[in-house]
Parts: sequence; structure tokens; C-alpha cells
Amino acid sequence: MAVGDVTMPHMHVVQGVKIGSAEAYVRYPNRRDLVIFEFAQGTTVAGVFTQSAFAAAPVLISKKHLAENTPRYLVINTGNANAATGVIGYQNAEATCTKLAELTGVQVNQILPFSTGVIGEQLPLERLTQGLQPALDTLNENAWSDAASGIMTTDTTPKGASEQFELDGITYTMTGISKGAGMIRPNMATMLSFVATDAPISQEMTQALLQTTVTHSFNRITIDGDTSTNDSCIFVATGLAGGTQIQSQSDARYQKVLDVLAGIMNRLAQLIVRDGEGATKFITVHVEGGENTQECCDVAYSVAESPLIKTALFASDPNWGRIVMAIGKAGVPNLDASKVQVWLGDVQICLDGGANPDYTEEAGAAVMAEKEINIRIDLGRGTAKDTVYTCDLSYDYVKINADYRS
Amino acid sequence: MAVGDVTMPHMHVVQGVKIGSAEAYVRYPNRRDLVIFEFAQGTTVAGVFTQSAFAAAPVLISKKHLAENTPRYLVINTGNANAATGVIGYQNAEATCTKLAELTGVQVNQILPFSTGVIGEQLPLERLTQGLQPALDTLNENAWSDAASGIMTTDTTPKGASEQFELDGITYTMTGISKGAGMIRPNMATMLSFVATDAPISQEMTQALLQTTVTHSFNRITIDGDTSTNDSCIFVATGLAGGTQIQSQSDARYQKVLDVLAGIMNRLAQLIVRDGEGATKFITVHVEGGENTQECCDVAYSVAESPLIKTALFASDPNWGRIVMAIGKAGVPNLDASKVQVWLGDVQICLDGGANPDYTEEAGAAVMAEKEINIRIDLGRGTAKDTVYTCDLSYDYVKINADYRS
Repeated sequence: MAVGDVTMPHMHVVQGVKIGSAEAYVRYPNRRDLVIFEFAQGTTVAGVFTQSAFAAAPVLISKKHLAENTPRYLVINTGNANAATGVIGYQNAEATCTKLAELTGVQVNQILPFSTGVIGEQLPLERLTQGLQPALDTLNENAWSDAASGIMTTDTTPKGASEQFELDGITYTMTGISKGAGMIRPNMATMLSFVATDAPISQEMTQALLQTTVTHSFNRITIDGDTSTNDSCIFVATGLAGGTQIQSQSDARYQKVLDVLAGIMNRLAQLIVRDGEGATKFITVHVEGGENTQECCDVAYSVAESPLIKTALFASDPNWGRIVMAIGKAGVPNLDASKVQVWLGDVQICLDGGANPDYTEEAGAAVMAEKEINIRIDLGRGTAKDTVYTCDLSYDYVKINADYRS
Repeated sequence: MAVGDVTMPHMHVVQGVKIGSAEAYVRYPNRRDLVIFEFAQGTTVAGVFTQSAFAAAPVLISKKHLAENTPRYLVINTGNANAATGVIGYQNAEATCTKLAELTGVQVNQILPFSTGVIGEQLPLERLTQGLQPALDTLNENAWSDAASGIMTTDTTPKGASEQFELDGITYTMTGISKGAGMIRPNMATMLSFVATDAPISQEMTQALLQTTVTHSFNRITIDGDTSTNDSCIFVATGLAGGTQIQSQSDARYQKVLDVLAGIMNRLAQLIVRDGEGATKFITVHVEGGENTQECCDVAYSVAESPLIKTALFASDPNWGRIVMAIGKAGVPNLDASKVQVWLGDVQICLDGGANPDYTEEAGAAVMAEKEINIRIDLGRGTAKDTVYTCDLSYDYVKINADYRS
């Protein structure tokens, strides 16, 4: 079960974005496993993708098409990641785009493909392409919730965020969905996210907004430290709500859009952690007092990905020695342990690198009993800071990832 | 339960090494938790220690004493790591050495202290020092098995290795013990190991032998990627079996001793993995075809530490997409996925970066059903290679670390 409030909000329509879906039997019957996004002409599209050396075929093609042309359609399947599928996998992803281009009358490189699911098996191309027309037949503006469900793998809940905001007297909408950490079969938790606004934003600023906000949202979450071959995040701006196009960061509206997008991206990213495989707790690891952002992140990830800390969090055991261990192994050059402070919630557990003499096991246990836990670390050597979000490691994580065939 | 044959061999006596132990009630009553080693005068001693920035007080003191003087005693406690214990912890470790020096008549800096157990709590100094004389009272040459039991924490089995070998007509003995079994990653991990020989070896060569052999043994194992604050490995040579001292690597006997030590260190290191917390399988990850050793290790550790791969190994699931994922995320610069080959045992699962068309699920499942599994990866870009040892991730790993504070 997901941790905390993961309710889908009212998903406001974004002018110029239509969504369709179908049951294509990619892997399982009676499952809405194919989703198509259609964008109005003139929509600007930005994307960021996995850095895996084994990036899936659809990732390679999406990056290529995005560089060549202005996308008009996204086509997304679950049930098969089309990763580690070689030349045939690449051809299958291209063939999907070609077929959708024929049906819609756009150019092949105006279509971006996305896949999530099993790795190392070929796409059922015929079933997939046969599902395209039925999906197109359902295109409509008010289908964001269907899309959120349609891209799930074994996520236990659909994930969405939606805001309306005003710029110079015009009301704009921004709506997005994501999926994460659920296995459908022997695979990894691929992260996919699609966010759209009807605000008018140049191509360059769309990409800038996405890259700025992804850093502190999707690039600051970890379930198990494993990186998917298929991770993709797309941000589009249709401009259909009117107004003049935002073309530079010095436009006062840029910061406002940035704030809204940051909020939506943070929410969508944190929803993935809240629904992490087997998660029973939502953990925020904040590191401050670093010499630079990199070392803050190194320490935060070392803590957030330590199996020993994650099992202690699951057990609500204030075993803070494990946090100190993770700080120590993070590789921060010349770290002076005697300047390190650590808090569990508001309770200081580690004072100047040693046990805080005022700390009591009861105070620590009270914090650890919560569903949402903040770990704060001060490295005592600078002003840099950063934050990473994670979840605990439970029996169910092992069960989900080990027992799927039983 | 440990994986495979972990039987203690006959532990040959090493002339000049005596071992005593006692119940000091460091954490639990009725537990032999204090071990003392005594070395004959003239013994050469080498050590390697954790690289954690939060290195425990006994590690700091052992390094200092080793640099200052020739050790005559090791004093080892379980139940408390004396790590993240600040000035008091440091004073407690010093006080333990001071007391033992008084009782034995050696100098304080001829004593090396070692601790393993819970982090962040102060040593029960009085109980510990009261146990010193009882431990000294039991000193005898034939107590290696007792020592192996006495240094255990969550280990389920004592770990030992012992060999006899001949150099220029003289028979020498080499015997050692180790403990694990969580927080295991190179450099080094809550890993303690003590190895002794009665061969005559200079101080410089003793250190050279230790550093050479630790690289491919204790620095190539991982249970959970976590690195302890207390890792220490000590190698001593008493010289009491006679012969002239080995003083350089060009001495023909050096290579022979190196081979014996490498065998003992590999065995002691692999025993730790075989007894990894919750381990049900012993996994060898071999990476070849790299441009350099570092990238081979990066890929091997990425595979060996992936929770998704480790849960699949636990489930005997030939889930090779996860292996490809872990190769992809290892950060090898400009890795060409289409040149990557992967084998499970003798079964090639990944051919030129994609699914091997000849692969069958049955063949993969047969390999995965074994207790000892080899994963071999060829990066197809060079001649470097390296090997890392690990275990699977089971329910019991979570149970041990969630339900029990080690």
C-alpha cells in the first residue's frame, strides 16, 4: 500500500492535449496497456531520458525523433520494455511509429515511443499496432486519469498532479502523470512521466524548465538504487490558453511556471516513492553543511540506499549507528567526523560525531514509529545542501521481486 | 544457513601465537565475547583497515599503535563496535589497552584493540577490563577454533582456514579466522580477520603480502554494499618455525608464501559471503573484456549489489534483464551495448546486447536452481577482468536486520 495521501486530484483538462487508450494485449488480456497522447500543432516538447548504457529501443528513437522534428504524438505501452532487444527491438519500435504516422498523417519522426515492462523479450508488434486505431478512436481531452491508470505496471495506485495558475490575467493549466515502482514481471521499476501545460513556452524554455525541475524531483528519488533502461520524462506546452510566448528566463512569467512545474514534478516524483515496492514509510534525507552539492547528494544517496538503514526504518528501529556508517562510506574527502550532526525528525541523535548525551531511545523510537520520517545530516564544512527521497526495505520488497512466479 | 561447505578445517597451531578468551558480558551474558591474541617477541605484524570517515576508535588506535611500535597483543570484543562514540569511546579503547599493558608488562602501544557490534553506544569498560585477566588465564596455542567462535556477531558459523607448506625443507603453518556477516563491502567491511604464520618474514614483506592478497579477497566481496566502521585485517609472522627471514619479493619463498596466503584469504573472505546475512546462494560475478580493472569492478559491483538481481537470485529466477540493467547503470564510459555478452553458468543469455536466440528459459532456470551461481559478463572492449563475490537477498536478510539489532 502506498504511504500517505496519494489521492488523484481533479485532473484539469489541458487545452491542446488529447489522450486515447486501448487494450492491446501486450502481455495480459483485458488490460488497458496502450496509451496515445496527441498534441495540437505548435506544441513545444522537451524530454529527459535514462542515462543507462542499455537504454531501450524506444528511448533511443524518442531522443532521435525529438532532435529531428516537433512531436505530435506519444505512444506508450506497458507489459514489455523493448529493452535489450537488439536490432529487432529497434525495428519494432520504428514500425510502431510508422504505423501510427500512417493512421494520423504526421511524419514518422513526429512520434515518440515509450515502453515499460519485461526486458529482453520482443514486442508483440502485431497486437500492438492493431491497438493503435482503437486508441486513436478514444482520443479526448478529459482522459488524464485513464492515462495514469493505463501506464501503470504494478503500481498500486495511479499517480497524478494538476494545478491552475494565472499569468498576466490568463488562467493556465498544468497536469501530469507518472508511474514507477511496480513490477509486472521480471523487470525493474521504470519511471515514466508526462506533464503538459497550455501556457505558451518556446522550445528552448520548455527544455530549460524540464531540466531545471527534474534535478530536484525525479533525479532525487531512489527506491533500490537500480536504474531502468526506459526512464523518460516529457514536458509539453501547447500554448492554446493564449498569451505571448515565454522565450527567455528573464520573462517574469518564467519563474512562475518554474514554480508550478517544480511543484507538480516533486509531487509526481514523491508519489513514485510513496508507492515504492513494498514501501511502508516515506523517508526524506536532507544533507546540509556540505562543501558542494555533489557531496551532499553522495551522503544522501549513501543513506537512502543502504539496505541496513532501510531495514531499520521498516522495523522502526532507531539504529542510528547505521546512518553514521552510511555517512562514513560515502566517500566525502577529508570528512571530519567530529563535526557531523544527525537528526531523526527533531531529535538530535548524533552530536559532533558521537552519541548525543541527551538522546534517549524513546525519543528516537517515537520518530521512527511515524510513517513519514525526516533524516537530517549536517556535515559541518560548508553551505551546500540537497535532499533525496526514499522508502524503507520491507519483506514485501523481497516478495514482490522474488515471488512473482509463485 | 551458510551456503556450501563452510566446515572448519583442522586449525593447525602456529608457533608463537597464543589465544585466550572470556565471557565479559559486553552485550549479552554467557557469551564468549572477548578474545586476546599474544604474539612471541620478534613477530612482524601488518594491518589493513576500513576507509570509512567514521572509522571506529579501536581502528584509529590500532593504526596509531601499529605505526609506533611492534604489537604483542590483540584484544577483540564483540557486542559493541565502539564507533561514533567520540572522545569517550577513544578513551575507553585506550583504557582497555592500558589495562592489558599493565597485566602483561608490555607497552601500551604494543596492543591493538578491535571491536565489532552495535555502533554509537559506549563500551561497558568495567566489564570489559574485568574480563582481561580471565582471558589471559586461558592463553594457549591450540585455541584458534575458540577464537573463531569468540569474534562472531550475526555469523551463523565460525570461519577458519589453515594450511601447512614447505619452504627449503622447513614445514611452516598458516592459520586464520574471519567474521562477517553484514555491512560487507570492500575497504573493508564489518569484517574482522586475523591470519598468522610461523614463517620468518620481515615487517615490510608482511605488509606487502597482506596488501597484495587483500585486494582480490576481502576487497572483492559484498553482501549489501554497506561498509563498516570497524573493518580490520591483520597478518602476523612469528618466524618461530625457523629459517632465514624473507626480506624481499625476489626471495623465491615470497611467491610461495603469497600463494598460500592468497588461498587462505580467499577462503576466509568467501566464507563471509557464504554466511552473508540471510544468504541462500553464493554468487560469483566475473567481468572480462574491460578496458581496465576499475570498469570491470564497477560493473561487477553494480550487478553484485543490485537488490533486483539479488532478489531474483533468491527466487531462482533467470531474470537476465536485470543483469543488463545493472551493466547499463554502472557508468562505464561509452559502453557499446551491442558488444556485451552475458552468461549464467555455461548458458549464454545475452548475445551482442540482446536476447540470445538460442537461450531457453529452462536452461537458465537450471543454472539458477543451483546453490552456487556464476555470472559472467564480457564487455567486449579490452582485456581487463576482475571477479566479485556476493550472495542473494532473501526474506531473512530483512528479518535479521529489521528484527534484531546486531
